Amino acid sequence: MTRFALTVEFDGQPFMGWQRQAHGPSVQQVIEDAAFAVTGERAVVHAAGRTDAGVHGLAMRAHLDIDKPITTFRLIEALNARMRPHPVAILACEIVPGDWHARFSCIGRRYEYDIICRRPPLTLDKGRAWRIIHPLDADAMHAAAQRLVGRHDFTTFRSAHCQSESPLKTLDRLDVERAGERITIHAAARSFLHHQVRSMVGCLALVGQGKWSADDLQAALEARDRAALGLNAPPDGLYFAEALYPD
Amino acid sequence: MTRFALTVEFDGQPFMGWQRQAHGPSVQQVIEDAAFAVTGERAVVHAAGRTDAGVHGLAMRAHLDIDKPITTFRLIEALNARMRPHPVAILACEIVPGDWHARFSCIGRRYEYDIICRRPPLTLDKGRAWRIIHPLDADAMHAAAQRLVGRHDFTTFRSAHCQSESPLKTLDRLDVERAGERITIHAAARSFLHHQVRSMVGCLALVGQGKWSADDLQAALEARDRAALGLNAPPDGLYFAEALYPD
Repeated sequence: MTRFALTVEFDGQPFMGWQRQAHGPSVQQVIEDAAFAVTGERAVVHAAGRTDAGVHGLAMRAHLDIDKPITTFRLIEALNARMRPHPVAILACEIVPGDWHARFSCIGRRYEYDIICRRPPLTLDKGRAWRIIHPLDADAMHAAAQRLVGRHDFTTFRSAHCQSESPLKTLDRLDVERAGERITIHAAARSFLHHQVRSMVGCLALVGQGKWSADDLQAALEARDRAALGLNAPPDGLYFAEALYPD
Repeated sequence: MTRFALTVEFDGQPFMGWQRQAHGPSVQQVIEDAAFAVTGERAVVHAAGRTDAGVHGLAMRAHLDIDKPITTFRLIEALNARMRPHPVAILACEIVPGDWHARFSCIGRRYEYDIICRRPPLTLDKGRAWRIIHPLDADAMHAAAQRLVGRHDFTTFRSAHCQSESPLKTLDRLDVERAGERITIHAAARSFLHHQVRSMVGCLALVGQGKWSADDLQAALEARDRAALGLNAPPDGLYFAEALYPD
């Protein structure tokens, strides 16, 4: 048995999310079905994180165990061939020790969130970004975001369906950058609560519109109450960008 | 009667091209149908250029004449509302003199072409770029591209269906830039022949792979023979980026 670590890129639009589900297509199912077609083995694919319906992956990390002898190059080629025409691609593959786990060994996760600030509907970026028709002050968003960096009880920014044992998380980075009409938010932490990035982005959008001050954002955090959440951003603009592992 | 100039963005994937056609959907038809729904008038929409099936628009310029009194703001809003869910958006609109013509007044056109250089299939960039699995030398491509800049007979790079009176064109700019796995080619001229950008990009890809030298590219140009064309690039990576007008 050999454990293979995968780097996976996917367009989240046609999927119910990463995780295999009974009622619709998932990224996990596409990879597992391709792996079965290639190896004849029913391997489970474990990922660094679960993504919601419509959320994209730039470099999701995952692993699976295979008995059949196969090289990493051949595995990438065969999986990519079998996954067509689904918008899922294996970008890289390496053999890892049997105790390496895409989820439990992961020591850092980074997401990106794209907002496009304009009045006309999106065409080329449809389903890939959150269009906001109000002008946004990216500097004010970035300044307010720093109130959320550090170790906090993020209950306000946590979905009712979150399965994490504790709402205490350490947010390492929450940066807001503007390039023309595009605003990109970078969020990094060891781990996140369910909907945490989208909830933080939603509230930062209120700050950007001037509806919330940085103090309002901080008050929402300190309320530790989901009812204090201003706005949950849609999945369209969210990208799982990076997973970090020791060495 | 008022003449309105439009700036149009579109995802070319679902369309047979810009121009209205009997056998399939076109960008022109989507805008004209929306204009009819808004004004009750059957206006013809004229564009700076015609694009092929699958080619995208970042800022196509077009114009139409409307009798009904309407403000530019209201026209943008109404057209964008009526064009849903087609991936076409009016980004800007202005009133222009009655002798201003999106095609005939245009004094410069710029295209961008995106190549993604990697082995795995595209997911998020599917239909938006040309994937090439061979390594490409972008510097060699840029150097060779300069042989095409200037006034030449571009018969080699011209589609058999081209309706231009002359194959003589002046290419003002053909720059090749790399950013990671993405290579972007910028092409600017007063006007282009049909398939000229895609034909030039196809041959530059041969140069990037080392299959053609800069001399081979120049020999193809000087052959003035479509049979000397090395390769025509697919429409996926082509974007109509800008149209220039006097003042």
